[in-house]
Amino acid sequence: MSIPDLWAVVPAGGSGTRLWPLSRAGHPKFLLDLTGAGHTLIQGTVERVAPLAEDRVVVVTGRAHAAAVRAQLPELAADQVLAEPSPRDSMAAIAWAAAVIEARDPEAVIGSFAADHVIPDGEAFRACVAEAVEVAREDYVVTIGVEPTFPSTAFGYIQLGHRLPGHSSAARVRQFVEKPDEARASAYLATGEFRWNAGMFVVRARVLLDLLAEWHPALAEGVRAIAADPAGLEERWPELTKIAIDHAIAEPAADIGRVAVVPGDFIWNDVGDFATLRELLPARDGMAVLGEAGDVLALDSSGLVAATGGRTVAVVGIPDVVVIDTGDAVLVTTTQAAQDVKRVVDALKAAERTALT
Amino acid sequence: MSIPDLWAVVPAGGSGTRLWPLSRAGHPKFLLDLTGAGHTLIQGTVERVAPLAEDRVVVVTGRAHAAAVRAQLPELAADQVLAEPSPRDSMAAIAWAAAVIEARDPEAVIGSFAADHVIPDGEAFRACVAEAVEVAREDYVVTIGVEPTFPSTAFGYIQLGHRLPGHSSAARVRQFVEKPDEARASAYLATGEFRWNAGMFVVRARVLLDLLAEWHPALAEGVRAIAADPAGLEERWPELTKIAIDHAIAEPAADIGRVAVVPGDFIWNDVGDFATLRELLPARDGMAVLGEAGDVLALDSSGLVAATGGRTVAVVGIPDVVVIDTGDAVLVTTTQAAQDVKRVVDALKAAERTALT
Repeated sequence: MSIPDLWAVVPAGGSGTRLWPLSRAGHPKFLLDLTGAGHTLIQGTVERVAPLAEDRVVVVTGRAHAAAVRAQLPELAADQVLAEPSPRDSMAAIAWAAAVIEARDPEAVIGSFAADHVIPDGEAFRACVAEAVEVAREDYVVTIGVEPTFPSTAFGYIQLGHRLPGHSSAARVRQFVEKPDEARASAYLATGEFRWNAGMFVVRARVLLDLLAEWHPALAEGVRAIAADPAGLEERWPELTKIAIDHAIAEPAADIGRVAVVPGDFIWNDVGDFATLRELLPARDGMAVLGEAGDVLALDSSGLVAATGGRTVAVVGIPDVVVIDTGDAVLVTTTQAAQDVKRVVDALKAAERTALT
Repeated sequence: MSIPDLWAVVPAGGSGTRLWPLSRAGHPKFLLDLTGAGHTLIQGTVERVAPLAEDRVVVVTGRAHAAAVRAQLPELAADQVLAEPSPRDSMAAIAWAAAVIEARDPEAVIGSFAADHVIPDGEAFRACVAEAVEVAREDYVVTIGVEPTFPSTAFGYIQLGHRLPGHSSAARVRQFVEKPDEARASAYLATGEFRWNAGMFVVRARVLLDLLAEWHPALAEGVRAIAADPAGLEERWPELTKIAIDHAIAEPAADIGRVAVVPGDFIWNDVGDFATLRELLPARDGMAVLGEAGDVLALDSSGLVAATGGRTVAVVGIPDVVVIDTGDAVLVTTTQAAQDVKRVVDALKAAERTALT
């Protein structure tokens, strides 16, 4: 099942402020076992892709988290964890990994999979990636388009174009569209032509960097120089263009017909907030519990309780409630207000209570 | 301002399960500073009546709480705290105190005021009690009828009859009525004849015991015997009739025209649950805070947060929420569901987690 020319790139960034107080700057969500699966999100991500990529895995993370990543993934060699001196958005992170991999194998295909997403059906995911690799070998930038299960306004969408001959389900990408409002999202779903953009890209390292060299030559040159001479990292890194891979590569490449999509009909969850997390967890009488189920007492209530503070949590008479109990902070909200949790982190920062963030 | 023949009796009982987890069996609500006033409810009760009764105060409480009561009220002499061997309802508690006081001063008037009620305007309260004492000297059982501010279904009501000549506002009690439904409560208020029954009684100790001797002779005889010979407490106490003062004395005495009422138009609050407690506390943007205000972060929310666990409590997007954070338990509910909090205590007991109750 291994695909010898496939390398997995795992960008492990983002602070996950909408998952506060579980997720903190010091231990962001990819380092947490948010689903009670027995492994953290980044461990799950690496496990999921391992049957295809084996030990060909490169994690790109912030310097502050490199030690934790190495501790959680002891199987990775020193050069498989790239520690960014500072955050410079997704294009720099992925391009750096691509340049490192390109230097080792100029024909390598990289698959970039975020460290903090959850895909329960690993087999369906890998079947999709395997087809994406085949398409990527034809020098396409390939994305995986997740079958939408509802008209989400939290994700961008991918519109499918003509089918690619010679592949079982791949199609050209007609366009990427930004997060829509709900009416537009419903309209997208009604056409049957749209998929969620889950931010997964499969592409030859060389193709990625060559396209980047066309539109952002300094960035492509910078990461290739760092890969060739790691001693230049400190000096070159702060000068790299700060841009997301979608804007830097995916959208312009789609405009010139260089992007393909493999539709995936597996469940995919970016664990973006507590409402999303709740959907991932088994529920009893509508109440999902993370942590110690014996610590939770729910009466006439539904939603999500995380009992990770070692204390008893009692909830009475609130539907769709979210209670997150930790050692030094407790959050109470609803699944409807879950997107606003990041405002708590903003307020704590404004009050200079950064120890809690 | 002191009234030399007035003795204050303070029954300090009840577990306050609807105020869990602030109130526990081991530290019930009367031992807590629930309003952030700087004193506990029982200290506030004694302070409120002290200008009238000075050191003529007798507290009746359960044996388990006697030491805590003495610690909170160090000014009381040993014989001013009566420790019940077991709970035998309000009539036994108040009658025991009445018998002890009667033995010291046969003409004494006692005023019975529960240890866990809150009356912010002490002066208005004392003016009312002073008039009640005058009426009680005419051998009436006198109650104080609190002006209702809304058609509560949580309290019993008192219907006023003819005015008593020679007093500024006292009237005969026509009848006591049990907690009504909301329609009936509204009808009561519309008549202008009804007051809330706040469970306050002012009556000569001798009159109380003589009336009791008519309807419950064994009970009257029992408490008088205990007062005469405290050594008999252990033997006699378990045999005392278990009955509330309303049923034992107030209602039958009203039927024979022996009960008067002094209307009080001060704010009175029995702190029966968190919805009631919220009304007592100052609120900022609709959010009342008990404990450390600096520990509370409320966004788009109203209600009550008790931050007594030393942790940050963040609430996002819930109106009328109640969050009670303590060292070993956190409760999340709404003011609408506040009455159901006692079910949490029932459930904890059923699960044999009595350490938390």
